[in-house]
Amino acid sequence: MEFDLIDIIRARTSIARADVVRGIGDDAALLAPPAGHELAVAIDTLVEGVHFLAGTAPADIGWKSLAVNLSDLAAMGATPAWAVLSLTLPRADRAFVEGFVDGFVQLAQRYQLALVGGDTTCGPLSVSVAVHGFVPAGQGLLRNAAQVGDRLFVTGTLGDAAAALHCHLDRDGTGVPPALHARMVRPEPRVAAGQALRGLAHAAIDVSDGLLADLAHVCAASGTGACIEVARMPCSPALVSRFGVDAARGYALSGGDDYELCFSIPADRVAAATAALERVGCPATRIGSMVESGGIHVYDEQGGDITPQRRGWEHFAA
Amino acid sequence: MEFDLIDIIRARTSIARADVVRGIGDDAALLAPPAGHELAVAIDTLVEGVHFLAGTAPADIGWKSLAVNLSDLAAMGATPAWAVLSLTLPRADRAFVEGFVDGFVQLAQRYQLALVGGDTTCGPLSVSVAVHGFVPAGQGLLRNAAQVGDRLFVTGTLGDAAAALHCHLDRDGTGVPPALHARMVRPEPRVAAGQALRGLAHAAIDVSDGLLADLAHVCAASGTGACIEVARMPCSPALVSRFGVDAARGYALSGGDDYELCFSIPADRVAAATAALERVGCPATRIGSMVESGGIHVYDEQGGDITPQRRGWEHFAA
Repeated sequence: MEFDLIDIIRARTSIARADVVRGIGDDAALLAPPAGHELAVAIDTLVEGVHFLAGTAPADIGWKSLAVNLSDLAAMGATPAWAVLSLTLPRADRAFVEGFVDGFVQLAQRYQLALVGGDTTCGPLSVSVAVHGFVPAGQGLLRNAAQVGDRLFVTGTLGDAAAALHCHLDRDGTGVPPALHARMVRPEPRVAAGQALRGLAHAAIDVSDGLLADLAHVCAASGTGACIEVARMPCSPALVSRFGVDAARGYALSGGDDYELCFSIPADRVAAATAALERVGCPATRIGSMVESGGIHVYDEQGGDITPQRRGWEHFAA
Repeated sequence: MEFDLIDIIRARTSIARADVVRGIGDDAALLAPPAGHELAVAIDTLVEGVHFLAGTAPADIGWKSLAVNLSDLAAMGATPAWAVLSLTLPRADRAFVEGFVDGFVQLAQRYQLALVGGDTTCGPLSVSVAVHGFVPAGQGLLRNAAQVGDRLFVTGTLGDAAAALHCHLDRDGTGVPPALHARMVRPEPRVAAGQALRGLAHAAIDVSDGLLADLAHVCAASGTGACIEVARMPCSPALVSRFGVDAARGYALSGGDDYELCFSIPADRVAAATAALERVGCPATRIGSMVESGGIHVYDEQGGDITPQRRGWEHFAA
């Protein structure tokens, strides 16, 4: 039965790449990495009831399982190339697999990413994807490269996906605004933005666990602190109109599941980075600065410290 | 909490490789593949209750999660290099993670394999590992390269792990012979054997789902059939003494979870392959031949066709 599922997957994923020597159908894929580049590799698992709600459309699960991984590549400035997939299903469900693969491939095609292997197994619904991309040697965007005085930016808007999850779980009867729901089920990884920031940004991370939580990793790795001016936080009109500006900023600071990039950049490269991001159609907003160590502080318009207690999503929170 | 677990993992995995530019602790690992080689990539997931019994020692789960993946690399003739790990746990269990990582690293050290990244998440216990290895360009052992007339070989002995599982599930009170139990919980991937067969074997596959099931993939991919002389099947003394020769051969043909290599090789290279395998301490046994298409047939000593119905482990069998 496993092999029927693999045949379904193979039949629906036909992206041809010259660097795939051997794709789906052997014990391992054989791939030809380009010279002069480093290979970027990330793995992420999505579990039903943890990373997506029970009843989520299979195509949305397929999309998101790739999107969260591409977001990791984006944060390194890498160009996506290949993925392997491990799909765990309670039973051999042809319709589920077809829908899942269609969503996965819809996103993969944008980047000419080839699905080159994987396995299917029986168990509680979960998906593991490992992605592979390239970055010119020495040009990867690292977490530990932020410097005091850097300007702190985020791409796009934050908080929509966490607010959508709140609406779904809350079931207050008013429904989930479509713009927020879309951010939750079909996140758009900032792949082009990450590549545009190569050679410009100092440090970068993708915002998956919540801005404050993820920025804390940059600070810890770089030996810096950070300050954020809350009034600068970019929130979507849909988020603000549903929740008001204060709650919107709360979601944006600590919500998670955003898959935007947070990056630090020296002042004299801000104009070049802004122009490079504009060329790929990616908005970015300055939200603060990297400062001497001392943690992350969020300030209001009067300069008062309003740093929230909750930093973000904790996978094993009680 | 996730980051405490990652710190535990990082602290216990200290294999240094010059080709790891950036290991655990960023959005993705950055790696430097060697020139002139292809990259072999495989992924496998182990689920509690499916691939290992509830109550299995965490170190055994760690070992096996890497072993099954190394076995895929072995079947390509690849040299292991890097792995990424995605660990899904019902709760943040420090002792489990420590035990798991210790078992994983015990096997990783043999091959100087570096764990370069991963994630931990909350959910029903399962483990996904993706491994990466190298093979000189064009020298990978493929499933589709068997030719009519090739001699058919397997390494080591088959059937022990499946028999051990039977003893565990059967609970007939007589216990599980330690030699069989060890094959179930600590399979030894045939990494050195796979490398030794480069340039010699035509086709290779690892025996994970059962010899007949896995050999069927080689036959389908190569457009051949295969015949097996049952009297040649290599079974361990522990297996034969517990179950008798007929049942032992049944486990060896269809049991699965063996992680031996099955390979086909032209007659004029058999001596060279046998010598190469001897140099790495790997026994191998000729069990039959590749023949014209017509499926796989198993013959007894009198030439009678005794091909079993059951081919092997089916992940979604009812």
